[in-house]
Amino acid sequence: LDEAIERATSRCGIIVIAMKASILAVGAELLAPGREETNSAYLTSALSEIRIPVVFRGVVGDDESGIAAAVRHGLECGELVILTGGLGPTLDDCTRDGVASALGRQLREDTRISEWLRARFRARGLVMPELNLRQAMVPEGAEVLPNRKGSAPGLFIALRDDAGPSEAERFVVLLPGPPREMVPMFEEHVRHRLETLGTGEQVLTRKLWVAGLPESSVEHAILDVYQGVDNPETTILAGPGQVEVRLTATAPSAQDATKLLDSLAQPMRRRLGAALFSETEESLEQVVGRRLKELDWKLTLAESITGGLIAHRITSVPGASAYFERGYITYSNESKTELLGVPSDLFASAGAVSEEVAVAMATGARERAGANVALSVTGIAGPSGGTKDKPVGLVFASVAGHSGVRTKKLLLPGERKYVQQWTAAVGLDLLRRELEGISEA
Amino acid sequence: LDEAIERATSRCGIIVIAMKASILAVGAELLAPGREETNSAYLTSALSEIRIPVVFRGVVGDDESGIAAAVRHGLECGELVILTGGLGPTLDDCTRDGVASALGRQLREDTRISEWLRARFRARGLVMPELNLRQAMVPEGAEVLPNRKGSAPGLFIALRDDAGPSEAERFVVLLPGPPREMVPMFEEHVRHRLETLGTGEQVLTRKLWVAGLPESSVEHAILDVYQGVDNPETTILAGPGQVEVRLTATAPSAQDATKLLDSLAQPMRRRLGAALFSETEESLEQVVGRRLKELDWKLTLAESITGGLIAHRITSVPGASAYFERGYITYSNESKTELLGVPSDLFASAGAVSEEVAVAMATGARERAGANVALSVTGIAGPSGGTKDKPVGLVFASVAGHSGVRTKKLLLPGERKYVQQWTAAVGLDLLRRELEGISEA
Repeated sequence: LDEAIERATSRCGIIVIAMKASILAVGAELLAPGREETNSAYLTSALSEIRIPVVFRGVVGDDESGIAAAVRHGLECGELVILTGGLGPTLDDCTRDGVASALGRQLREDTRISEWLRARFRARGLVMPELNLRQAMVPEGAEVLPNRKGSAPGLFIALRDDAGPSEAERFVVLLPGPPREMVPMFEEHVRHRLETLGTGEQVLTRKLWVAGLPESSVEHAILDVYQGVDNPETTILAGPGQVEVRLTATAPSAQDATKLLDSLAQPMRRRLGAALFSETEESLEQVVGRRLKELDWKLTLAESITGGLIAHRITSVPGASAYFERGYITYSNESKTELLGVPSDLFASAGAVSEEVAVAMATGARERAGANVALSVTGIAGPSGGTKDKPVGLVFASVAGHSGVRTKKLLLPGERKYVQQWTAAVGLDLLRRELEGISEA
Repeated sequence: LDEAIERATSRCGIIVIAMKASILAVGAELLAPGREETNSAYLTSALSEIRIPVVFRGVVGDDESGIAAAVRHGLECGELVILTGGLGPTLDDCTRDGVASALGRQLREDTRISEWLRARFRARGLVMPELNLRQAMVPEGAEVLPNRKGSAPGLFIALRDDAGPSEAERFVVLLPGPPREMVPMFEEHVRHRLETLGTGEQVLTRKLWVAGLPESSVEHAILDVYQGVDNPETTILAGPGQVEVRLTATAPSAQDATKLLDSLAQPMRRRLGAALFSETEESLEQVVGRRLKELDWKLTLAESITGGLIAHRITSVPGASAYFERGYITYSNESKTELLGVPSDLFASAGAVSEEVAVAMATGARERAGANVALSVTGIAGPSGGTKDKPVGLVFASVAGHSGVRTKKLLLPGERKYVQQWTAAVGLDLLRRELEGISEA
């Protein structure tokens, strides 16, 4: 780190350690409501892998002087500006023009590009419209990056004769907008050119996935571990029935970042105990599937409130047929009796949403399917169907195995979709604990 | 439009019609890989509703001069700059400082804020740390926007004494970063202030949802309708088993935009015929549910390849219990025979993935569940299990109703998840066509 800081310069008000990057996405359509822009996220991750931090991201319309201003801003913030989009042949595509203007360079026709473009048209028996020559106009001194997937070549411009505040080399890279063209061009022609330049900080993340504890309990359990620790940074993200503790470490090398991550993950692991189910982004259904294979057990499911969601999660894992061969979706009382053998008097005495029915569903499903283990869920997803005694969000989940039945009762907040998703996660976690031999549910 | 153009000025190289906006998201964490920034998308949509187009979006780190430079850039591109994030009490939160610096204004303590902050702490029996006074420092002339959900007040700054190139009023708005604080503050305190200022273009979209046709056929069917038409703009987005034709019209008023949308939607409707299932974002499972209710019919499902996904989609609709009371997930041959009565010799003669088995599953499920209509699907989701004759992606879907059975055979490309999703959409569409009395599948 010392060496890196030694080379550091202060610019744009921040400490610049080696190379820093800006990413500019160009295109009026990217500024319209409901549009997603994915290139910036891709490039942020790719640059992080080669240790180039991103310090500015922007989205600009198809507007030459707007692009030029954004490029100038990017070059003030760091040494690398990557633009995506606006390289097409039509008049609204003006990234080339904006960059040339920002750098004070002329656009010149690159005859290799114009020849290549003409050949592309000829190959399809067409004559190239003159408008397409725009794609052959490149700022002076730019290297051309071939496009395997489309007609817009990329450009790589090194600013060696930089008269700005820094004497370091600076770079402007132009890539096409469609991800299917941008990604291979970056990977094949840009990554290796930048790799040796990125000597900045390495950013690594680790995700601890937790089930069976609410977000506040997760926070309470690990608060004293991460409080006051800036690096790694700790973020707690809650989803339905699952909590992610995300650690992000920044260090000069991957080894140092890994050490930082370990220093926090280890005490967190102890505190989270059995609630921690994955540090490798293995989902609950993947953990459950792996354990069923190890035990050579068959699973069956009896779903009421989740209406197939748990079975869908189980069968989304490749090879699920090795341990799952049938499931029952029993929404009505009659179907619970006919398909699972739930005694019909239970509906009057305990109600369809009750521990008794959940247990009868699980034991009935296990027996009828000839499975080693069965998971059942019954509850009220809403928005209607709730009563004072049995409100929307009341859920029972049961797991029947060789040594008996364990049941969990929940009262979940939120709307239908959320209640269903939460129930599926709780059911899968109950199953996981059974399969991992964890006694406390 | 004439009136609007009359008021238009050219700036930043583009035609500015009334007010245009920039959105700046502040926070170092937003520049890290894997982080999603959702405030900009929310504000883009909200501003579009009040006819203020967004011309620039940026993400900047917690860095005073970087924020200041971005604010100046935003004010060059338009009359409104909205910043989110960086309003906390800690030293890295410097949005207030960056804005003050960009506007050449001093930060002054607003005693109403400091009093309110102290009261917040007192209410919890705490003394406010002096550091938190940072949140009471506001640029001269700023109006304070109360925060119902957190401790960071927002700021609304009108630049009436603007010495820049335009004489129009310009505005800088500072909102907190957490969406749960930002959204209510925008809705309660900012939207109405901007509403009367946004006299720009109205952007309206319409979505035509199509099933049962591949993307290329959809494009071919409607190409001559939209080719050469810039407004509305037409985008075709393909998902598994479903294609969205999205029309985006820009006009001075909502009525004009609606007229533009109608002018394209009407001929597209004719060309798409029965494949068009919704213009109101009603999903396939919602259309199916609505039709089942209208007919007072019961549905049952027999799923092999989709493993519960179709049942999950059906039961995600509130009130599904009115028409769906049971479903069968039959992954193995044995379960198809035991639960649905599929003759076991069919597996040897035709194979589990065959028209014969799909038909037997649907008719068996319909009979055993006492339903009016049954949908079955069988296929090979992969990655393993394919053979030369029956490759991965081979799928049969059958619908059994009062007047017989209709079956669709498909060969789907892509990985497991995609094949399952595509199969679910095809199955639901087959069901929709049965329920809508459409003869061609």
